[in-house]
Amino acid sequence: MTERLVVIGCDAGGMTAATQARRRRPDLEIIALEKGRFTSYSACGIPYLVSGAVGEIDDLVVRTPQDFRDKHRIDVRTKHEVMAIDLDERRVEVRDLAHDRTIEIGFDLLHIATGAHPIRPPIPGIHSDWVLGVQNLEDGAAVLDRIGASRCNNVVVVGGGYIGLEMAEAFVQRGASVVLIEGGDQLMRTIDADMAAKVAEAVKGHGIEMRLGSAVTAFEGGAVHTDAGTFPADLAVLGLGVAPNSALAKDAGIALGPRDSITVDPQQRTSAEGVWAAGDCADSFHRVSRRRVHIALGTVANKQGRVAGINIGGGYATFPGVVGTAITRVCDTEIARTGLTEFEARDAGLRFVTGTVESTTRAGYFPGTAALTVKVVAEKGTGRLLGGQIVGADRAGKRIDTLATAITAGMSAAEIVDLDLSYAPPVSPVWDPVQIAARRAAELLP
Amino acid sequence: MTERLVVIGCDAGGMTAATQARRRRPDLEIIALEKGRFTSYSACGIPYLVSGAVGEIDDLVVRTPQDFRDKHRIDVRTKHEVMAIDLDERRVEVRDLAHDRTIEIGFDLLHIATGAHPIRPPIPGIHSDWVLGVQNLEDGAAVLDRIGASRCNNVVVVGGGYIGLEMAEAFVQRGASVVLIEGGDQLMRTIDADMAAKVAEAVKGHGIEMRLGSAVTAFEGGAVHTDAGTFPADLAVLGLGVAPNSALAKDAGIALGPRDSITVDPQQRTSAEGVWAAGDCADSFHRVSRRRVHIALGTVANKQGRVAGINIGGGYATFPGVVGTAITRVCDTEIARTGLTEFEARDAGLRFVTGTVESTTRAGYFPGTAALTVKVVAEKGTGRLLGGQIVGADRAGKRIDTLATAITAGMSAAEIVDLDLSYAPPVSPVWDPVQIAARRAAELLP
Repeated sequence: MTERLVVIGCDAGGMTAATQARRRRPDLEIIALEKGRFTSYSACGIPYLVSGAVGEIDDLVVRTPQDFRDKHRIDVRTKHEVMAIDLDERRVEVRDLAHDRTIEIGFDLLHIATGAHPIRPPIPGIHSDWVLGVQNLEDGAAVLDRIGASRCNNVVVVGGGYIGLEMAEAFVQRGASVVLIEGGDQLMRTIDADMAAKVAEAVKGHGIEMRLGSAVTAFEGGAVHTDAGTFPADLAVLGLGVAPNSALAKDAGIALGPRDSITVDPQQRTSAEGVWAAGDCADSFHRVSRRRVHIALGTVANKQGRVAGINIGGGYATFPGVVGTAITRVCDTEIARTGLTEFEARDAGLRFVTGTVESTTRAGYFPGTAALTVKVVAEKGTGRLLGGQIVGADRAGKRIDTLATAITAGMSAAEIVDLDLSYAPPVSPVWDPVQIAARRAAELLP
Repeated sequence: MTERLVVIGCDAGGMTAATQARRRRPDLEIIALEKGRFTSYSACGIPYLVSGAVGEIDDLVVRTPQDFRDKHRIDVRTKHEVMAIDLDERRVEVRDLAHDRTIEIGFDLLHIATGAHPIRPPIPGIHSDWVLGVQNLEDGAAVLDRIGASRCNNVVVVGGGYIGLEMAEAFVQRGASVVLIEGGDQLMRTIDADMAAKVAEAVKGHGIEMRLGSAVTAFEGGAVHTDAGTFPADLAVLGLGVAPNSALAKDAGIALGPRDSITVDPQQRTSAEGVWAAGDCADSFHRVSRRRVHIALGTVANKQGRVAGINIGGGYATFPGVVGTAITRVCDTEIARTGLTEFEARDAGLRFVTGTVESTTRAGYFPGTAALTVKVVAEKGTGRLLGGQIVGADRAGKRIDTLATAITAGMSAAEIVDLDLSYAPPVSPVWDPVQIAARRAAELLP
């Protein structure tokens, strides 16, 4: 009898797995269930849709349901929300939203890629229809709808991380008045305070009104109330982080890990036989802290989905984990990180030295050269590179990949200095700034 | 008695060593001898001086002789050309060019950083005063002088490598008619033919007249004669590679290595007791081919000079070698390489597979995204990454550093696919192109 794979969730973590499984098993029946309308999209592109840099929501869709049906023989069903997983009976209960009915679909193999959702702390009014998160493309569509319905001249962004800053800039580019409320005393709490201060400086003068150290008390009557005053808002954007969509898995008795993400083994297998998970709903191994973590990023979802699909298809692949790399660009400033920050290293029980340098993106004399700051964190004793952070102009950020690769390889700060990195005046100083920062850290080591 | 260090050659390989030695040994007397006028400069900036992107020759000088005297107590003597090294008597014979006299300077420690010179094959007229190489800043000054003396409306560039292409573009930007003569059948013979074809395509339409597979037969009567015709030339630029300035060392009985470069050990020590060497005159260990090679690049000179200086100063440092990384930008196209090309891998006795991808510099839908091609070479059997090449638009090239770091770490193609590289729509596709190329190579491996 034909074996059936059911995939829950049709973005990267789900469809990468589905297509990989199909490549290896032409015989498999594959049904992919998506509660929204979209498949395989770039949610990271939503801010650029809002700003107008990207024209249409469909530009962010990499493959449509029909693509998957035609090219991969995958039975994609949108507007189908899975309500429950029955592991004993090997079936899922599915709400067919378009026809308002409930159906049951049996499976032999199950892959869970339910993604994540924006965190909504218990603040009065946070579930209002004008308070929106931006985690999936449905969210993006809702923001566009809101812009269509009300001109969104006044926007309040809650949270000063990647998504908050990207959305704040996008609305400024649309011509809105934007207030950004951040509860902590720095922007970008995923980087160290000294580096975040450089972000704050760079963002200054770009039209975003910043309120750091302020707490939202209510969303109410077309305004966001905070302990620093009330701000009118046609739209409030939530950028307070995300939480995994793991309730289905939990209810089915599947083991959860950090922040209630679904725990997976290196093959992306969950604690349940014949059930895999990948993407924003799943956890990952952190190769530096050596802990399991929940990191919701498209890169990780794609990699995990690929590994899951190879294994589902009868191959063998493992996902060795993450090193915590992330990048964004806001107000012409690139912000990148990898490995552990100072606070993360401390939290992981490690002692360290740091090295920081202010340098330039190109040779100092080259037209268009611009400032960047690189900071590295290296372990005391071993000298092992633990982490890196970069804040700087156009072209600064991608250098983080050199550090991410070095960290993965277990290189020491001194070994970074020895790396044969590329140099020409239009693209770099003769010592790449990551090497100068590493040298400074290395000089503090025995 | 005060010990004396004599340094021959005052660019990166020499002065990095001199300042490092000074840091560790305040007691040392340091005399640095330079036959030209300039110290510590960026010869790589010469094309941008010619094009006008960089205003003045002094902009390329990082530190002047006076800087070294004032800040580092280094007795820099320009216009002093060393004519001979006497290892038995521990002294150098020096021609003081300004005063037209010969002096002798004794040394306890000697550091040789004599650089390299443009190769001049035995072609009639190649020593004419209008046939110029561009290896050091004196050469750059000579080119500027020539431009001042004759308008240089017609320029012939001989050699289609980095320097040839950069100089050709620079003269086009000045408004000159430029013919580029290349003896081989491809531009950029340091990359594989398939990648070089992409360079040729990119350079097309930028105003450089290309003659591939053509040999220069004479420089004569204000023209360059070739087997493909005669081209008028107010100036001919040589880009046929460089050879180490090792005659002084050779005459002193110091051992030479590949292409007559000075052989050094990991501490940058030559075969003679108390004599070091660094920079374009010295050889290097290639970490992939595991052979000694001669690679004349500013990055290598700086690293070797630093290591030599630490050791001269009584510390301990080693230079682990190069992986053959290089980058340039010509006609808005970035060209980068690291490790071994196909032809180099073959020459090194290795068998391999390759993976190539055409991708984009940013997310496909992001404004300003542009094409790039990445090719990787991986060893059969082990899967070890042997090399990478990139040709593409603005922002393409610096990705080579990821591959250079991975090669240094001995990673396999499959391990590249697993790397946690940075992604955001303005800076990269979700799978970095280097990972897609590596995946294609990995799929051909057992």
